[in-house]
Amino acid sequence: MKEVAIVGAGVTKFGKRNDVTYRELMAEAIVEAIHTTNQEIKPQDIDGLFVSAAQPELLVEQAHVGNLAAQVAGIQPKIISRVEMACASGSAAMRNAWAAIQAGLAETVLLIGIEKMTQNPKAASKSLCIVPDVEYESIHGITAYSGFALAAKEHMQKYGTTREQLSSVAVKNHYNASLNEKAQFHEMGEIPMEKAINARMVSDPLNLFDCSPITDGASAVIITTKENASKFTDQPVFIRGSGQSTEPSIGVSNMSSISTWNALKRAANSAYEMAGISPKQINIAETHDCFTIAEIIEYEDLGFAEKGMGGKFIEDGESKLGGSLPVNTSGGLKAKGHPIGATGLAQITEITQQLRGQAGKRQVKDASIGLTHNLSGFATHHVVHIFSN
Amino acid sequence: MKEVAIVGAGVTKFGKRNDVTYRELMAEAIVEAIHTTNQEIKPQDIDGLFVSAAQPELLVEQAHVGNLAAQVAGIQPKIISRVEMACASGSAAMRNAWAAIQAGLAETVLLIGIEKMTQNPKAASKSLCIVPDVEYESIHGITAYSGFALAAKEHMQKYGTTREQLSSVAVKNHYNASLNEKAQFHEMGEIPMEKAINARMVSDPLNLFDCSPITDGASAVIITTKENASKFTDQPVFIRGSGQSTEPSIGVSNMSSISTWNALKRAANSAYEMAGISPKQINIAETHDCFTIAEIIEYEDLGFAEKGMGGKFIEDGESKLGGSLPVNTSGGLKAKGHPIGATGLAQITEITQQLRGQAGKRQVKDASIGLTHNLSGFATHHVVHIFSN
Repeated sequence: MKEVAIVGAGVTKFGKRNDVTYRELMAEAIVEAIHTTNQEIKPQDIDGLFVSAAQPELLVEQAHVGNLAAQVAGIQPKIISRVEMACASGSAAMRNAWAAIQAGLAETVLLIGIEKMTQNPKAASKSLCIVPDVEYESIHGITAYSGFALAAKEHMQKYGTTREQLSSVAVKNHYNASLNEKAQFHEMGEIPMEKAINARMVSDPLNLFDCSPITDGASAVIITTKENASKFTDQPVFIRGSGQSTEPSIGVSNMSSISTWNALKRAANSAYEMAGISPKQINIAETHDCFTIAEIIEYEDLGFAEKGMGGKFIEDGESKLGGSLPVNTSGGLKAKGHPIGATGLAQITEITQQLRGQAGKRQVKDASIGLTHNLSGFATHHVVHIFSN
Repeated sequence: MKEVAIVGAGVTKFGKRNDVTYRELMAEAIVEAIHTTNQEIKPQDIDGLFVSAAQPELLVEQAHVGNLAAQVAGIQPKIISRVEMACASGSAAMRNAWAAIQAGLAETVLLIGIEKMTQNPKAASKSLCIVPDVEYESIHGITAYSGFALAAKEHMQKYGTTREQLSSVAVKNHYNASLNEKAQFHEMGEIPMEKAINARMVSDPLNLFDCSPITDGASAVIITTKENASKFTDQPVFIRGSGQSTEPSIGVSNMSSISTWNALKRAANSAYEMAGISPKQINIAETHDCFTIAEIIEYEDLGFAEKGMGGKFIEDGESKLGGSLPVNTSGGLKAKGHPIGATGLAQITEITQQLRGQAGKRQVKDASIGLTHNLSGFATHHVVHIFSN
């Protein structure tokens, strides 16, 4: 198996980006990523392209964005694909890009993640409603919001998880975003616990501050073989483990459990096994906090906390900056923002910056092994990656 | 490099399929593919899943169809992705599935191609108009139809390609469809040359019989390592070559040439090189005849005919059943139908059936090396595969 390294990774400013077109947003992410290499990389060095975009057809009325991305990047790759797995598209694309290098189809791959969600609010609402099972569930009012609310209800009932613990996730992630200039809610700064607890209800028990926002943003990551990496950076970050799994279900009604995510456990175990490490060795993680309850369940099913102790994990401050395992130092989906197709690669960008010691005010000291977790649907599909220097 | 074999491949009846839902159409293709194995394959044998679907979000208002496919198939794959490269999604998915096996991420992969285009005609029109560059070209009236019409005009002017030669492609492919019960226009039977020549104009010089139709349909292919293949079939068909390339352009205005497709030549050369064969060794091909002019240009840029001699190649009957190199024995996109996401894997299914000697009335005698070619956009992106027993 070839060792594969990240040599560049960048994100655009997240938020409402009506200052740029879709292709300009793409270009901005590519430039950001190139700026984190030694800038010796040329278009002809890039022979693979994977684009993660969830719903450009609805959101910006442009299809075939894989080919568009080749134009924006000015490249003629030997392997090119747009990958869509809803909110986990970016990590799924990374897995395919890694495989393309292993298979010898490419040596150096550019990955671009993008979503521009705010220019057509009606389309944005629709785009979220058609991710679950439209024929059997959405039609009865089961949306991402009510689906994750069910998970929260069950977790609270089974394990005693509290309102305060949910809000602690929001408070932590908004604090982290206050240290990240690229975050959508950077300018909002810290939020007091009372504000998070008393926000208006969205889907009981999830209130506004339990939910990630609608966001425009893009991310880009460049990966290559170990042999090539030294040409483009003296700070390579290696992909050590990768795992993916799914429930044989797109809907919430057929999940094996809604407050324990078995597919996440399988994906994580695959990644840990491949990397040859245990959860205790992880120094830093970006996990999929589309809702606050998600981050709590993830602490457990990623093996950071015992089952049912996710609420206590956040309450005890383990996952905050300075804690034993800082989670979502970027601000997470909650406060950095969640431009669907950009999210997976933005998580990987944060871990890359942390492992390179370039995370500025939110730098985790001596971070050497990082993890990303990206999910889609009602947590029916999960991808986990592990990285180290 | 591992040898990878197709062990099962099937397509649904193509056409207007309002007798089934989207997931039922998917299931139908999976069952068809399994019926071409020895039926020893179990859900737990399948550890990879790639879904080729171009625009289910618009056409049937369902996203996250990769996860839906896992539910329909009843599997929990270790690698799963929905791949979209417009009309070439199926072949792009095949390339990724092959890479996943090479990389050791899966041993046995199910590929599903699907599109249900007729249930919402407005959405179907829109879906075609957003594949080209919406911001710079579609907005000025450049659609797939007018774009390929430009290619036809230039080819006619440069090489003397005639109206009759274009229509000969339609006549041939409708004849082939008359021998293929799964084809959309099977029941229409043969069409006379006069009918093809005198059909109503769509975009000069392309008339109705120069254009592929709007279609519902699905396809499924199962691939695995050579070692595993014997468990599931005694007629494996091996993937010998694979190539892909793109113009650094999504639009027609930035293409390096519109009547010579340089990206196709690169993709074909990669595939020939990998397979270690020359174009002259191909016995049978399924090529991307979205428009009749496309098939003519493909004869040339795939190396079957000299540049500019594609019109003569069809006129001389080289590509008909019984000719030196039968092309689109299935009926092609023109007459078998073109359910976007299903097309690439349907082409591979036809070649599989031919190489297995199971193509019935349209069987090409002693076919042993087959090729598929699948394109997207204004022929800005191409994938070529080569297969043999």
